[in-house]
Amino acid sequence: MKAVVTVMLKDGVLDPQGKAIGQALHGLGYAQVGEVRAGKVIELELAETDAAAAKIAAERMARQLLANTVIESFRVEIAG
Amino acid sequence: MKAVVTVMLKDGVLDPQGKAIGQALHGLGYAQVGEVRAGKVIELELAETDAAAAKIAAERMARQLLANTVIESFRVEIAG
Repeated sequence: MKAVVTVMLKDGVLDPQGKAIGQALHGLGYAQVGEVRAGKVIELELAETDAAAAKIAAERMARQLLANTVIESFRVEIAG
Repeated sequence: MKAVVTVMLKDGVLDPQGKAIGQALHGLGYAQVGEVRAGKVIELELAETDAAAAKIAAERMARQLLANTVIESFRVEIAG
């Protein structure tokens, strides 16, 4: 199964990368752009054949390694 | 509308960050982990009220700034 872990900075945590992207887009003339947040996505190929078990395993990995839960939140999606 | 742009290295492009994450997960005992790919996700708050227009705008931004289309592919999802 493939698990997709998306890691974003928590709301309220300053996101300089997102800010820089927003300013660059404004500079290119995209005036419609409001807040921009930047994060990471990690796609994991897992041996689990059960979607629920794969999700639990990916969530453990996210808490243990992939996300810094002090300042980041994560979500896990299972894709096929 | 919120647009979520996910940028991943194209298949076949070496992904040292993904490799490092995979090795770290193996080191933590997650033997079930196969290939790991790492990418970026950018959430954009857009003034567009039409989902199709928002998607087209986000795709233009991705091609122009957010992704390096020589080595990266991207997908855009519109969320509410």
